[in-house]
Amino acid sequence: MNRTAGELAQYLGANLAGVRDLRISGVARPSGARETDLIYVSSPRHVEEAAASAALCVMASPGVRISGKTIIEAAEPKLAFVKAAALLLEKPPRNISVHPTAVIAPDAHLAPDVCVGPYVVIESGAHIGAGSDLGAFSFVGRNSVIGDHCVLHPRVTIYPGARLGNRVEVHSGAVIGSDGFGYVFGEGRHWKFPQIGGVAIGDDVEIGANTTIDRGSLDTTLIANGVKIDNLVQLAHNVQVGEHSIIAAQTGISGSSVLGKGVVVAGQVGIADHCTLEDGAVAGAQAGIPTGKTIRRGQTVWGTPARPLDKFKEQHAWFARLPELARRIRDLEKAKTPE
Amino acid sequence: MNRTAGELAQYLGANLAGVRDLRISGVARPSGARETDLIYVSSPRHVEEAAASAALCVMASPGVRISGKTIIEAAEPKLAFVKAAALLLEKPPRNISVHPTAVIAPDAHLAPDVCVGPYVVIESGAHIGAGSDLGAFSFVGRNSVIGDHCVLHPRVTIYPGARLGNRVEVHSGAVIGSDGFGYVFGEGRHWKFPQIGGVAIGDDVEIGANTTIDRGSLDTTLIANGVKIDNLVQLAHNVQVGEHSIIAAQTGISGSSVLGKGVVVAGQVGIADHCTLEDGAVAGAQAGIPTGKTIRRGQTVWGTPARPLDKFKEQHAWFARLPELARRIRDLEKAKTPE
Amino acid sequence: MNRTAGELAQYLGANLAGVRDLRISGVARPSGARETDLIYVSSPRHVEEAAASAALCVMASPGVRISGKTIIEAAEPKLAFVKAAALLLEKPPRNISVHPTAVIAPDAHLAPDVCVGPYVVIESGAHIGAGSDLGAFSFVGRNSVIGDHCVLHPRVTIYPGARLGNRVEVHSGAVIGSDGFGYVFGEGRHWKFPQIGGVAIGDDVEIGANTTIDRGSLDTTLIANGVKIDNLVQLAHNVQVGEHSIIAAQTGISGSSVLGKGVVVAGQVGIADHCTLEDGAVAGAQAGIPTGKTIRRGQTVWGTPARPLDKFKEQHAWFARLPELARRIRDLEKAKTPE
Repeated sequence: MNRTAGELAQYLGANLAGVRDLRISGVARPSGARETDLIYVSSPRHVEEAAASAALCVMASPGVRISGKTIIEAAEPKLAFVKAAALLLEKPPRNISVHPTAVIAPDAHLAPDVCVGPYVVIESGAHIGAGSDLGAFSFVGRNSVIGDHCVLHPRVTIYPGARLGNRVEVHSGAVIGSDGFGYVFGEGRHWKFPQIGGVAIGDDVEIGANTTIDRGSLDTTLIANGVKIDNLVQLAHNVQVGEHSIIAAQTGISGSSVLGKGVVVAGQVGIADHCTLEDGAVAGAQAGIPTGKTIRRGQTVWGTPARPLDKFKEQHAWFARLPELARRIRDLEKAKTPE
Repeated sequence: MNRTAGELAQYLGANLAGVRDLRISGVARPSGARETDLIYVSSPRHVEEAAASAALCVMASPGVRISGKTIIEAAEPKLAFVKAAALLLEKPPRNISVHPTAVIAPDAHLAPDVCVGPYVVIESGAHIGAGSDLGAFSFVGRNSVIGDHCVLHPRVTIYPGARLGNRVEVHSGAVIGSDGFGYVFGEGRHWKFPQIGGVAIGDDVEIGANTTIDRGSLDTTLIANGVKIDNLVQLAHNVQVGEHSIIAAQTGISGSSVLGKGVVVAGQVGIADHCTLEDGAVAGAQAGIPTGKTIRRGQTVWGTPARPLDKFKEQHAWFARLPELARRIRDLEKAKTPE
Repeated sequence: MNRTAGELAQYLGANLAGVRDLRISGVARPSGARETDLIYVSSPRHVEEAAASAALCVMASPGVRISGKTIIEAAEPKLAFVKAAALLLEKPPRNISVHPTAVIAPDAHLAPDVCVGPYVVIESGAHIGAGSDLGAFSFVGRNSVIGDHCVLHPRVTIYPGARLGNRVEVHSGAVIGSDGFGYVFGEGRHWKFPQIGGVAIGDDVEIGANTTIDRGSLDTTLIANGVKIDNLVQLAHNVQVGEHSIIAAQTGISGSSVLGKGVVVAGQVGIADHCTLEDGAVAGAQAGIPTGKTIRRGQTVWGTPARPLDKFKEQHAWFARLPELARRIRDLEKAKTPE
């Protein structure tokens, strides 16, 4: 939706230097911007790029001035840009509709303003909250709950009994509530351990494309409020992820591991079963955290098996110098035995 | 289905100490159990937890007694629990039905008691065995075969010509029979190597959500009986997996690699092409097995490139002590040259 | 389609030694071939296997003769085999049809000879080029463009605004154009950075099953002509992949990284954000390339953090000998202090 620079400044509680009535219709990066796009400058290095941009309105730190540009001043220009973008990119009111091809159980509960795309299947006892949007081919299983203002992109599977909070966005191909992976071997075969627990997703969670989140075995898999999960992530049975944690693409978290609040897990990390990552812990890309391990509050780990970042760096520096160390040992040996 | 403690003991061939008529309606872990749930105790450490549980019936080792509880005695309580759970959680007889929205080729063969969900597509010449269940949005390609008592959860793709045995369970989003990844570069472009082989899945196989199993190129990709595959696993063309092997989440197995029987592959393992893992081999999480490598029968490997577990542990212990080793070399050098 | 040996030789511009009228109906490997299958021999080691095959026609290097076989001579027999296979396996002309269950927006543009499978959804303003084939459950979002002669296998999601070139093949479960993963943390929560860029796929690209390709944030994610992408790959926002590059299964490429032409990325590689892989660079399986790193033209890297292959090999050889190095240091220390 179109806004003026003044409206944006007011919305952000920010100071404006320039044309208050300037019309803003979108956001862009400086090099690709149109006149009516908002851009941002987060460091002095980028002022020049902004000056060369066609965009007329720039989010920048207090005091920054660029010739010919209207400046919205923000202590954290990138954050302010993102908040303004959320306002500018707000979707117009939807046409409320339930596509005639949707197969909806008579005893499913849909709030009156739910949008249901073509070929959606909603099973018996499911509950869809106000303002939610179910993309084409969504499958919402028996007795599952979708909160208010959720968005399921096309082709999301919600297994029976799964629960999503409010404002949850789930990307295409994600699967929530599939059976966990647990067997007991006996009498020459694998017997499946019961996978009958729940899966509960909090509010304001985003779940990436083709990500899989298993239901609990006898417990519940829990994803707290504000968690953001990238594409192709695997969360196993009974995993718990604390508020506002971030999990990057292709990471896997094994059964019963627990992540605290504000944990950051980079891409392709493997966290074995029964691990604990305390609040604010950080796992670097491709790190491997062995079974039962605890990563302390705020600690950053790297490598497989994961260890604190500075240890990793020191050890790896020596690893790279191994050929040299070997040579020095040889030299010492030669000096000792000159024959 | 509800059972009595006596019925469960009889089914398991186990001794019962307590109330034979005790009604059991489900399974749980001790802390979350209701009175009518069955719980289990697999080690003396957990007896106290069981004693504190609301559950009245406990699967435990012979001789264990807990005040107020009915005990079913089993040499392997967890295994017995799992078997009892399978009985208790048995689904009630299904309402046999083919949803009117299913698109079924006139020459597809469906056993009379197949369940077909909404928006299923079954192509020409496909065969669906007795008692099988096809979830919503299942796609069963031309001339493919689904055995008896299979379950396809919603949104599974079976490419043309793929063959599944009996009692195969496939989770949502899995893709079976996609083209393998093979090209020959020439004349400035990649030419696709023919990917026209088959894919054959044995009996009692479980396949996780969003897992991909490619068809063979000129051969057949083979998954033997009893194999269990977790979520987001990739099995490439011509791979063979032997009976009762286990493959954890996000593992990838490249073209023409062969796994024996009872192989265990942990999460995020990468197995390059033309490898052999002999019967009972174990690959630890995130291990990387290079092209053409053989892992011997029963051997456990770890790391990238993968090596036997004790070698890995010894080498890694020294890796962690690299800074110390470097210091000791420095000290030796100083002692030698005191100037 | 059936061909004769002579037709194949002529198509390839190759010399023929043997029966020109020999009928060829398919391709196979020597051991599983029928009489009418074409096989190939790419090295002298495999001549015996070909001689023992039932196949009557063999693609082989100039001068190779095998008793009883018709030989098509090719400098690169495997390449010639693949080209002949493409001809032999050509699909018969399709029955042009739009399945009556397809939900197609009135203002979507479909070329007259497009095939649309059951339960396809094509949104407003989408454009489908000549000869393209949309499998069951394909979702083609608003204003997206599918070029000519594309194949979407069943259950592919094309988000709004994504653009595919000509002859693009997308396997089941792939997601193209999902939101990138970018947030700015402030005021106690993650704010989503706008993910409103495009995604543009060139000509002759193949995309594997359950692969995810995110749209750009403010830029465009670009996949150039001739790129081949395996299953379960993740390409993040703003990634650029140059012509004829190859990306194997389960690899992840983070935001804004750029791959040149002819780059080869093996399986399970992790490429962090803002990396550059110059033309012809090669990343070995499971390699991890840290943020901002450049891999030079034609260089092969391995390991995490990735380094040149020979360095990796040398360092790793010493890594395996760490216990020995430690022993030698101990010996030196003992020799120095004999007390």
